[in-house]
Amino acid sequence: MIILVDMDDVLADFDGGFLAEWRKRFPDAFYIPLEERKEFYMRDEYPEELLPSMTELFTEKSFVSSLPEIPGGVKAVRTMKEKGHEVFICTSPMRQYSNCVAEKYEWVEKHLGFDWTTRLILSRDKTLIGGDILIDDKPEVTGIRKPSWEHVIFDKSYNRRIVNGKRITWNNWEEILSL
Amino acid sequence: MIILVDMDDVLADFDGGFLAEWRKRFPDAFYIPLEERKEFYMRDEYPEELLPSMTELFTEKSFVSSLPEIPGGVKAVRTMKEKGHEVFICTSPMRQYSNCVAEKYEWVEKHLGFDWTTRLILSRDKTLIGGDILIDDKPEVTGIRKPSWEHVIFDKSYNRRIVNGKRITWNNWEEILSL
Repeated sequence: MIILVDMDDVLADFDGGFLAEWRKRFPDAFYIPLEERKEFYMRDEYPEELLPSMTELFTEKSFVSSLPEIPGGVKAVRTMKEKGHEVFICTSPMRQYSNCVAEKYEWVEKHLGFDWTTRLILSRDKTLIGGDILIDDKPEVTGIRKPSWEHVIFDKSYNRRIVNGKRITWNNWEEILSL
Repeated sequence: MIILVDMDDVLADFDGGFLAEWRKRFPDAFYIPLEERKEFYMRDEYPEELLPSMTELFTEKSFVSSLPEIPGGVKAVRTMKEKGHEVFICTSPMRQYSNCVAEKYEWVEKHLGFDWTTRLILSRDKTLIGGDILIDDKPEVTGIRKPSWEHVIFDKSYNRRIVNGKRITWNNWEEILSL
């Protein structure tokens, strides 16, 4: 099987990394605990006046490359590959690409090793990428094509309104995907 | 139609940019004029002892972002889009990603405008990217999937041994592709 694995909030803890740094830098500012998030995009549930400071934080140098791991993700993708599946990390870069794109490669090299950097695919439209499965936390992954993959939702508080289809965590993926 | 357009030596003049800098920096060193190139990869026809200096040159900062245009390419992709086609720039980054990946986005922003940076797809396996046409100078574009696109060869001296299929330049593409 060709398995496409999203990066932010599936392998790399973007939201957790953001929140830790936000709380540290602005301890008195508004924030939403991770488990209370209801929207995929932070911009849809944080007050508009905070968005410039938030954007500054997650576009600054070393933010992406320093993101912590989502526990179990690195081991899971290694296991998929060892079982003979073709695994690619399929990620949509921020529009503010300057630090983001190279640091995604750095993150993968640091956490999975250099060879895995050749398995990175950057595209803002994931329906263009062919595969059997896409593991992604985004509630609905849309684009210009009819996807070839089955979207398996990576469980997060903000995607629980989606009740159809498979839903996994890094604790139960082998069982749910029958891999 | 979904049209995927390769970047290096189709839109951005990688080989020309390399050769100009190589000749300037090492005027007495061996080189192959562009029209005499027989192999897609320079490493397959340049002497092995030159490869470290060559690699140093094309991995250094600002090499990729400073590449000149292949004449006609920028106008062609803009025209395709104006005609209603979905156009994506589909490029395989160097393994030495550090400067390359962000600078590919910079090049696209500089020559096509910021909006086009959202149409960049980075993948070392282009068979994973879905589309109707792939315009690429590589003689044979292979990967793990059966491609959904038709490979249209962008004419270069090193791909003229391929005699099947369509072959275009930025002077005749509208006619050959019937767009």
